[in-house]
Amino acid sequence: MSELQDFSVFDRRESSVRGYCRRFRAVFATATGSAMRDVDGREYIDFLAGCASLNYGHNDPQMSTALIEYIQINGVTQGLDLHTGAKRAFLEAFERLILQPRGMDHRVQFTGPTGANAIEAAMKLARKATSRTNIIAFTNGYHGVTLGALAATGNQYNRMGVSLPGVTRAPFDRYFGSDFDSAAALDRMLGDPSSGIDPPAAVLLETVQGEGGLNAASPEWVRSVAAIAQRHGALLIIDDVQAGCGRTGTFFSFEEMGVTPDLIVMSKSISGYGLPMAIVLVRPAHDVWRPAEHNGTFRGNNHAFVTARIALEKFWSDQAFADQIAIKSDIVTARLKALARRIPGSRLKGRGMMQGLALPSGDLAAEICRRCFERGLIIETSGAHDEVLKILAPLTTPITVLERGLEILQSAAADALEDALVPALT
Amino acid sequence: MSELQDFSVFDRRESSVRGYCRRFRAVFATATGSAMRDVDGREYIDFLAGCASLNYGHNDPQMSTALIEYIQINGVTQGLDLHTGAKRAFLEAFERLILQPRGMDHRVQFTGPTGANAIEAAMKLARKATSRTNIIAFTNGYHGVTLGALAATGNQYNRMGVSLPGVTRAPFDRYFGSDFDSAAALDRMLGDPSSGIDPPAAVLLETVQGEGGLNAASPEWVRSVAAIAQRHGALLIIDDVQAGCGRTGTFFSFEEMGVTPDLIVMSKSISGYGLPMAIVLVRPAHDVWRPAEHNGTFRGNNHAFVTARIALEKFWSDQAFADQIAIKSDIVTARLKALARRIPGSRLKGRGMMQGLALPSGDLAAEICRRCFERGLIIETSGAHDEVLKILAPLTTPITVLERGLEILQSAAADALEDALVPALT
Amino acid sequence: MSELQDFSVFDRRESSVRGYCRRFRAVFATATGSAMRDVDGREYIDFLAGCASLNYGHNDPQMSTALIEYIQINGVTQGLDLHTGAKRAFLEAFERLILQPRGMDHRVQFTGPTGANAIEAAMKLARKATSRTNIIAFTNGYHGVTLGALAATGNQYNRMGVSLPGVTRAPFDRYFGSDFDSAAALDRMLGDPSSGIDPPAAVLLETVQGEGGLNAASPEWVRSVAAIAQRHGALLIIDDVQAGCGRTGTFFSFEEMGVTPDLIVMSKSISGYGLPMAIVLVRPAHDVWRPAEHNGTFRGNNHAFVTARIALEKFWSDQAFADQIAIKSDIVTARLKALARRIPGSRLKGRGMMQGLALPSGDLAAEICRRCFERGLIIETSGAHDEVLKILAPLTTPITVLERGLEILQSAAADALEDALVPALT
Amino acid sequence: MSELQDFSVFDRRESSVRGYCRRFRAVFATATGSAMRDVDGREYIDFLAGCASLNYGHNDPQMSTALIEYIQINGVTQGLDLHTGAKRAFLEAFERLILQPRGMDHRVQFTGPTGANAIEAAMKLARKATSRTNIIAFTNGYHGVTLGALAATGNQYNRMGVSLPGVTRAPFDRYFGSDFDSAAALDRMLGDPSSGIDPPAAVLLETVQGEGGLNAASPEWVRSVAAIAQRHGALLIIDDVQAGCGRTGTFFSFEEMGVTPDLIVMSKSISGYGLPMAIVLVRPAHDVWRPAEHNGTFRGNNHAFVTARIALEKFWSDQAFADQIAIKSDIVTARLKALARRIPGSRLKGRGMMQGLALPSGDLAAEICRRCFERGLIIETSGAHDEVLKILAPLTTPITVLERGLEILQSAAADALEDALVPALT
Repeated sequence: MSELQDFSVFDRRESSVRGYCRRFRAVFATATGSAMRDVDGREYIDFLAGCASLNYGHNDPQMSTALIEYIQINGVTQGLDLHTGAKRAFLEAFERLILQPRGMDHRVQFTGPTGANAIEAAMKLARKATSRTNIIAFTNGYHGVTLGALAATGNQYNRMGVSLPGVTRAPFDRYFGSDFDSAAALDRMLGDPSSGIDPPAAVLLETVQGEGGLNAASPEWVRSVAAIAQRHGALLIIDDVQAGCGRTGTFFSFEEMGVTPDLIVMSKSISGYGLPMAIVLVRPAHDVWRPAEHNGTFRGNNHAFVTARIALEKFWSDQAFADQIAIKSDIVTARLKALARRIPGSRLKGRGMMQGLALPSGDLAAEICRRCFERGLIIETSGAHDEVLKILAPLTTPITVLERGLEILQSAAADALEDALVPALT
Repeated sequence: MSELQDFSVFDRRESSVRGYCRRFRAVFATATGSAMRDVDGREYIDFLAGCASLNYGHNDPQMSTALIEYIQINGVTQGLDLHTGAKRAFLEAFERLILQPRGMDHRVQFTGPTGANAIEAAMKLARKATSRTNIIAFTNGYHGVTLGALAATGNQYNRMGVSLPGVTRAPFDRYFGSDFDSAAALDRMLGDPSSGIDPPAAVLLETVQGEGGLNAASPEWVRSVAAIAQRHGALLIIDDVQAGCGRTGTFFSFEEMGVTPDLIVMSKSISGYGLPMAIVLVRPAHDVWRPAEHNGTFRGNNHAFVTARIALEKFWSDQAFADQIAIKSDIVTARLKALARRIPGSRLKGRGMMQGLALPSGDLAAEICRRCFERGLIIETSGAHDEVLKILAPLTTPITVLERGLEILQSAAADALEDALVPALT
Repeated sequence: MSELQDFSVFDRRESSVRGYCRRFRAVFATATGSAMRDVDGREYIDFLAGCASLNYGHNDPQMSTALIEYIQINGVTQGLDLHTGAKRAFLEAFERLILQPRGMDHRVQFTGPTGANAIEAAMKLARKATSRTNIIAFTNGYHGVTLGALAATGNQYNRMGVSLPGVTRAPFDRYFGSDFDSAAALDRMLGDPSSGIDPPAAVLLETVQGEGGLNAASPEWVRSVAAIAQRHGALLIIDDVQAGCGRTGTFFSFEEMGVTPDLIVMSKSISGYGLPMAIVLVRPAHDVWRPAEHNGTFRGNNHAFVTARIALEKFWSDQAFADQIAIKSDIVTARLKALARRIPGSRLKGRGMMQGLALPSGDLAAEICRRCFERGLIIETSGAHDEVLKILAPLTTPITVLERGLEILQSAAADALEDALVPALT
Repeated sequence: MSELQDFSVFDRRESSVRGYCRRFRAVFATATGSAMRDVDGREYIDFLAGCASLNYGHNDPQMSTALIEYIQINGVTQGLDLHTGAKRAFLEAFERLILQPRGMDHRVQFTGPTGANAIEAAMKLARKATSRTNIIAFTNGYHGVTLGALAATGNQYNRMGVSLPGVTRAPFDRYFGSDFDSAAALDRMLGDPSSGIDPPAAVLLETVQGEGGLNAASPEWVRSVAAIAQRHGALLIIDDVQAGCGRTGTFFSFEEMGVTPDLIVMSKSISGYGLPMAIVLVRPAHDVWRPAEHNGTFRGNNHAFVTARIALEKFWSDQAFADQIAIKSDIVTARLKALARRIPGSRLKGRGMMQGLALPSGDLAAEICRRCFERGLIIETSGAHDEVLKILAPLTTPITVLERGLEILQSAAADALEDALVPALT
């Protein structure tokens, strides 16, 4: 490491809350596509992709160009929730390329530009629309760390012992194994007037739980839950913050499941460029907001609207991008299966470009990540015990780069095992 | 209005929650300094300034240049909480230009890029650090609309009837008039073991309540409250989201008050350019976060770090900017005083470049805003009854433009009164 | 009905909240053993027994005598929590006859004289002792209607839509059928740091859920739950308010299950005579109360202490009473089985002298109750849909009277079915 | 002390939560009128009176006789909420002697037999009737320790750090001194849509705060608060648990204040004999309970109904009793005034037979209580710092006994001061 890699101000002045930077100890400077480079010019393949907020890679050149042009003409940057040309163009593209082809009539709510803020908005709106309080959320669900969203988030580490009312926890698909129909169980409890579960305003779920360990719900389960929500007067909220924007192969993660969520929460890759942005899609019947009832300063991040529009036009005008994702997903699946066969106790998880490997321990997963980083691959874990190696490569990653990253992963894993770090397993 | 002003997609597709755009019905295209221009090229003086998130005006040319350069070299855009060169440069500038000159030892926590998220982080941290739950917030306080922050926010319209525990409300400075010492009252209640006020984790306040109606606390009151917090084992959290970044004349709103808050929440103008960014400043003793305990995807909005650094270097390297603010504040004061004399029942409020006029009714305030907009001035209201005309012009507004805006305001107000819209008052 | 049956003041002046009196429309005057008599002298066999608060029957003559004597010598009636001779005698008897023979080291907390108050005390104490908030309660659990207890109570009718935090609901034994091990499921969730279930202060359960529909937990399940509670640092609270005092055949309902609860809540029949009284039994290690931390005016109902002592001496000095309960329980079982065979879709439920019949509908159950009352039998329902006919006869009911009551029940049921009230079933 | 004073079973088996018995260390045996006697025959004058639950003294002979007769004829003891002759007679007497003469149309709800349970019922009913959650309670208010009631209770010692939502605390009459109009302040906050105080379901108050330190509200303040509640759509709940049943001179504590509470909560002395009983009086318009929505086993403590009726007939058939209370109250006032003059820093508090002396410290108050007990007087303290000597003698105390008790108090206080226990004061 050169002296350019000076961490002193971070060590001196940044709060102990910082996390990722502890594992990936470098000062990063530039990034393009699937590659990040540190101040020394060292290049890393990025299988984290801003935690799925960079589905189209770093600094997509068309978006860069459009953004620079927008800045050069002094396009409105910060627009509160004022009408702007950039917002209009985004809305029109979203309507034309996303909503209309899918037969969706949802309205768009621009919220504060974080997934958590959009989740909070969706929960509040569901409560207002139904005059109920209770929201059903699931084991291992992750929806953000502001207080309302945190109540729905399963992770104890983040829950911090704060009292978090208003949410009832239910087991996710196959949480208790394949024999237990957790959707039927939910139905049973909601139908039992003395089960102790208050009538819910909403059922809130991720079709693939990213932070929770790449747990992919089956289409049948999602359909059942959707029907149960409707039967019991609850809205269905799909949190597509991590699984949306093509991550699972289609724009929405639930497209091929035959459900129409009442509310859909999007963030992360919605801006296309990694800029902060979040929206809630709301079926008109539930759009009971009064003006400015949920507000916030940065709902009009017009830079994000510019790049978000480009992203829609570039990647979602036809089927080509989805086809590419499918091919890459298959590559990931194949490679992970091969790897799984070599790691006793490991198991493939996830769906599409949101796959990974559950390992026997979080320690092993951490060790593999560490070795990957040494070899130029950024990769992270998730899951209750951080035991799931999680591949969140940009969807645009060229196949050769994808293969190269997977090879690094494979060799790092092999070496970690060999070095008898987990002697019991080898 | 030309056909460029096509609102149809907004009307069709945007949620009913949108607010400002209802009052300022135009499609905005570009903006520089204190001016916004709509798609027809019509120009407006902006006395709203992204609700104080554009203290340095729209699209500051130096920031634009720096940002474009950063984009052109493919600087990391979205960096989670990874170390980046842009973040390092910001931290160094913040340390050198802000913290050190003021003798502050705070650490910087990058939170999700909204004020509400930073408030949530501060509240959680105070609760963790003290092992207490209760937080004292004040009448007319406004801290955001995610559930934790919303509990501290006074506005009923936003509170929406949701049960919001964990906060005790206390009267702000002079809420019950000058004769009632609300700080002493708070002290009394916290010292009384059967007052029913649980021992607080924190006291959370804005030195000038922006949304609450430009209520400026006196330095004495803030000092008293700081001492009371300390005496009762509570942290002092200053929400400087709206009043910070020079809005009141100094970088922090409390600089000349002789207090050192334990936690300081900043957002809005911290990026300098209107880009989403938020931080919490934390005294080292209270920085009890475990890694990633409070997290979020967009904590590493590096574009914002780039412009934020420029903003610090350009405006806070010496005293010149503060001096300019003082001069402009005096102009605003003088003009508003003159106007107040002409409107029976009106009253000057606020401090620095965060001043306004409390009018006898919200209807009159709305009518004046409407007329201002017709004449090319964007200005908003705040306060419990939206009765306070609020001037939040960019701090960089040239004096001539400031004067022009104030003249429009004055003539709009005069006409509104004349037209017997409020006959009882004339 | 004679004019003695004047209901006018009830109709005029009693709140609409009154319940049982609507089903059993009579003005009752006297009662002895298993019989109640109304003002007209009509006699009813009582299979409700003050909802199991009269396990030893109405107005037991020895208790009456002792109570009269106590009143005649001006024994202290209301003693707050002062030491009195009557309380001492009760404590000594309770120690000698109940605790010592069972090898229990629990201390006795006298709470406000309702089961709900004792439940509130137990929940608070568990929270204090563990510094945790969450309490696991079960589907169909019933623990009272004050706010803390109500949070643990499953019944929606009573929950009234009030926000009731601090309790997580888990499925009771066999709630999802025999194939689903709900104890293992609880263990799984408590062991999963991202299940979203906060670490519990206590697990609170009834071994037989009375109001919930006579759901009897298996000893294995109770043992598993006890072990799980211990493993996860939670106290085990057994709510023996309804199932205790011999109702299931032994003094405590869990005696033959091989568990030692940390806290045991008793009320209803603890006074023996139907007088208000409630206690919490606390293992010394968890008795972390400070003096008067949980208080209340009527913790020293000395009349109840007098009769409670007699009850212990008369019924629990040897095995005879338990033997009698066993015989009577078998009679109830046999008769209910016979009846169940004649009612399609019905099913035997419960344990000991806390048995009943789940019927296909609440309407049928209500109709049978109505006809029983016409024929001189007081019997009630419970369960999520009020579909469980519940026999709570005094444990002292002579066998002939028990048989007579069961015959009335049988004939009323037969007639209800015959009269084609439920044509689909016949 | 004789060997009859054996405390061993208490020390061994009673929970550490016991309180009063620590200060009054004796085993009490019998009691009549204003006298308690321990097992050694030592007699004590009782100025605690079961904490105001024995307003008519211990074991009133007419009530004893009636109760014995009722037991002898096997009158129903425990009647759930069934109609009984004893309940009917009580209701008729209550209607005739209490409600009708005062022009009150309230209905009677029999709740679980504790004040806390009745408070919980009143709070729930107010919330149901208004569809609001927030309840305004006051500094130093004391309403019981079950979770709902505890939220309204000010005492930190009892609040125990549990999160208690749903209540907003407001300053009681003269809490901030005579210059601050706390009713006007409440009005101001409730009328300010951004004060942060949610619209209340109810305002809950004691006209004299017993546990809070004998703070007597002025009639003007109570009237103002009643008007404010009505203006803001909130019910007025008077907690007359301690101040009712003649304690302040009239049956209800608010009779001469010109207010008609929507809900009135009574307990303590309502049974007349110290037996557990509690009721809520509900104006018909607010009696929106569904059957059994708030329930509980011991709502039908018929022994209490018997004595409660006698109490009404004996004491409230004419004005004589009230006249007697007035005379005795004047005696107490005079004596306390004299005493106050001799204790620097002390101050008379309370109203009627609910008066006391605020002393400079809780230690001094405790020391005086201790010395009183040695001399045969039972007297307790209240207040935030247990600094208020509280005289709660039975209202039936003969004047000579009252004088004797006051003399003991005076001499104990004098000696305590003399002995230089508080040298600074003498």
